[in-house]
Amino acid sequence: NHQSLIATKAARVCYAAKGDGIMEFGLRRAQGPDAGIFGARAAVIGGCVGTSCVLTGQMFDVPVLGTHAHSWIMSFPDEYTAFKTYARMYPDACILLVDTYDVLKSGVPNAIRVFEEMREEGIQLKKYGIRIDSGDLAYLSKEAYKMLAAAGFDDATISASSDLDEYLIDSLKTQGAAITSWGVGTNMITSKDCPSFGGVYKLACIIDENGTEIPKIKVSENVEKATNPGNKKILRIYDKASGKIKADLITLEDEVFTEDQPLTLFDPLATWKRTRLEAGTYTIRELLVPIFKNGQCVYESPSVMDIQAYCTQEKATLWDESKRLINPQEVYVDLSRKLYDLKNRLLDDAHTIKD
Amino acid sequence: NHQSLIATKAARVCYAAKGDGIMEFGLRRAQGPDAGIFGARAAVIGGCVGTSCVLTGQMFDVPVLGTHAHSWIMSFPDEYTAFKTYARMYPDACILLVDTYDVLKSGVPNAIRVFEEMREEGIQLKKYGIRIDSGDLAYLSKEAYKMLAAAGFDDATISASSDLDEYLIDSLKTQGAAITSWGVGTNMITSKDCPSFGGVYKLACIIDENGTEIPKIKVSENVEKATNPGNKKILRIYDKASGKIKADLITLEDEVFTEDQPLTLFDPLATWKRTRLEAGTYTIRELLVPIFKNGQCVYESPSVMDIQAYCTQEKATLWDESKRLINPQEVYVDLSRKLYDLKNRLLDDAHTIKD
Repeated sequence: NHQSLIATKAARVCYAAKGDGIMEFGLRRAQGPDAGIFGARAAVIGGCVGTSCVLTGQMFDVPVLGTHAHSWIMSFPDEYTAFKTYARMYPDACILLVDTYDVLKSGVPNAIRVFEEMREEGIQLKKYGIRIDSGDLAYLSKEAYKMLAAAGFDDATISASSDLDEYLIDSLKTQGAAITSWGVGTNMITSKDCPSFGGVYKLACIIDENGTEIPKIKVSENVEKATNPGNKKILRIYDKASGKIKADLITLEDEVFTEDQPLTLFDPLATWKRTRLEAGTYTIRELLVPIFKNGQCVYESPSVMDIQAYCTQEKATLWDESKRLINPQEVYVDLSRKLYDLKNRLLDDAHTIKD
Repeated sequence: NHQSLIATKAARVCYAAKGDGIMEFGLRRAQGPDAGIFGARAAVIGGCVGTSCVLTGQMFDVPVLGTHAHSWIMSFPDEYTAFKTYARMYPDACILLVDTYDVLKSGVPNAIRVFEEMREEGIQLKKYGIRIDSGDLAYLSKEAYKMLAAAGFDDATISASSDLDEYLIDSLKTQGAAITSWGVGTNMITSKDCPSFGGVYKLACIIDENGTEIPKIKVSENVEKATNPGNKKILRIYDKASGKIKADLITLEDEVFTEDQPLTLFDPLATWKRTRLEAGTYTIRELLVPIFKNGQCVYESPSVMDIQAYCTQEKATLWDESKRLINPQEVYVDLSRKLYDLKNRLLDDAHTIKD
C-alpha cells in the first residue's frame, strides 16, 4: 500500500511539472525512517529525478540531489563567505539556497557575485543556480531570473521548494514562474491529501482435500465492497489504434479471451453500461506476474531506475483524462460475465443462509 | 516528528472515547513497516490500551489486542463452525467478528449460539463479545446489545471498527451506540486529516574558537517562522490552584525566574497581549531534559507503559478548552523579554546588512 501510494502521488506531481525535474525532499517529515527511505524509492519510480535521502541513493542506486541547509549559511559569519566556500567544494552541483536572509537583496546578489568570481577565475560551474525556499515563488523566481540573466547567467537553474504539491506547481507554472526544478517534501512523502491507499488482502478461494477450488466471498452492506470470489486473473484491454487503456477486465483464471472475437464489457455495478469492442480494434495483455509460488519467491525485482522506465511507459497508456489533477476519469475495471455470475450466485447463497 | 504526530492523534481519539478502550488497528495502512510498528508504540503512549501489531507488542512489551480476520470465517464451511473453533482456542479473549455475512441475521445469532454452548458446558469465557466492522455502527451495536442481553450476555464486549476517527467516535457516542471498545486503524496510524508534524531542527547558536556563544537567526518572510536565536530553555508555567498550564515560556539558558516574583508574560507576535501573574499564584517547571551531551547519549528511555502513564499525567494539566476536538484553544508559547530583544536585534542586524 505505502509505496503504491507515494509512487502515485509522485506521478501526479511530475505530471503537473510538465517535464521539469522533481526532487524528492521529504525525509524529515516522513512517517518514520522506512517511510522516508522507501517513500523516496517510490517517488523515483513515480517519476522524480532523484531524492535528497542519501541512504535511498546508496541502497537503490538512484540519483541523490539537493543542496545545503540554512544552517550551512548560518554557520558562517556571512552569506557571501558561505556561498563561496560551498561553490569551491561543489563546482559540479552548485545550487545556492538564497533565502536565509533576503532573497532579492542578499541571496541572489551574493550568489551572482560568487558565480562571477568563479567565471573570472576560469572555474567551470557544471550545474549551478539557486534555490528559493520561502516567500512568493512566482514573483521571486521571475525577479531572480532577471538578475541572473542580466549578469550573463540565464542558464542557471532556478529551483524552488516550500510546501509544494501538484496543485501549487500547476498554479505557479500557470503564472509563468521562472522555476525549472522543484523540491517537493511533506506533501509528497506523506501523500498529504490522501495519506492511505486502501489495498486489502482477502481470502478469495480455498482448495479442499480433493484439490477442488472452492471460491469464497465476503458479503458487505456496501455493494462495491463485497469481494470478488475465486482464482482470478486481470486482462488489460487496449485500444489498438492509440495504445491507450480501454479497461481492465477481471476474469476467472481458466477463462480464455482472444483478440479475434468481439468483446462486450459491462460495468459490474451498472450492468446496463456496456461497450462492445469489435475484433481487431483492441489488444489484450495479461497483467498478473507470479511473485510467490508454493511459498517460494519466483521473481527478481528489477533496478529502481528500470522500474521507473517501466512506469513511464505504463503512464503513457493512460488517457490524459485519467491524469487530470482534479476529478479525473477513472479507468474502468469490469468483471467477466462468468465471474459476475459466480459472484452473484455466492451473494444469493449467503443471503439464503440468512433467510 | 512521526511518533509525536501519532501520539497526539491517538490522544485525540482516546479523548473522544471518554474512557472506552481504543485498540490500534492500523498496521496494513501505515506508511511502511516502521510507521506501523513505531506508530503503534506512539498510539499506546497517546492512550491506546493496546495494538493489533504483534511485533510492537513483542518489541515494547505492550498489550496485543484484536480478533480474527474475515478470512478465518471464510476458511470454514460456515460461520458457526468458525466461531465455535475460535472460541475453544481462545476462551480468554473471545471476540467474534460478526459481519462476514450479515451482522444481525447471521453473525450475532451464531455468536450467541456459541456463547450459550460454552456456558452450558461450564466453560468460563473470561473476556468475550463481538466486533462489528461494517454497516451502521450505531444501529447495529444497539440491536446487537438487545440480542446479547436477551440471551443473558449483557456483559459481552461490543467492539467496533470501520474507518473510525475521533469525530466519528464522538458522533456515535452522542447517538448512544452500545459500543465499549473501539478499533481504530487507517485514520489514526496515518493521522489522516493532518499526516505531518512540522518539527524542524535549526541552528540556534555556534561557539567560536574562544568558547563564546554566538546566537544565530534565520530570517523569514513569514514573521512567525523566523527562528528563535541562542541557547535556550523552556519553562512551563502552571496555575498553582488548578495545576493547569498557563503558558510555556522560552528563555535564554542563563536566565533565572523564581516563583516569588510577579511574572509578566506577553505574546511575541502581539506584544500588547500581556498577562501578569502574581507571586504565589503560579509554579515553574523546566521542561528540557538532556538526551545527548557532547555527542553521548545520557538518557535512558523508560518503558512504553511508563511513558503512557507520564503522558496521561501530562494530559491532565491541559485545560479542557485545549483538548476540544474542533478549534481548540492553543497553549500559549511566549518568549522572555531578553530573548525577544535578542531576536529583534538580530532581525534588525540582518535587515541592516541588506539595506
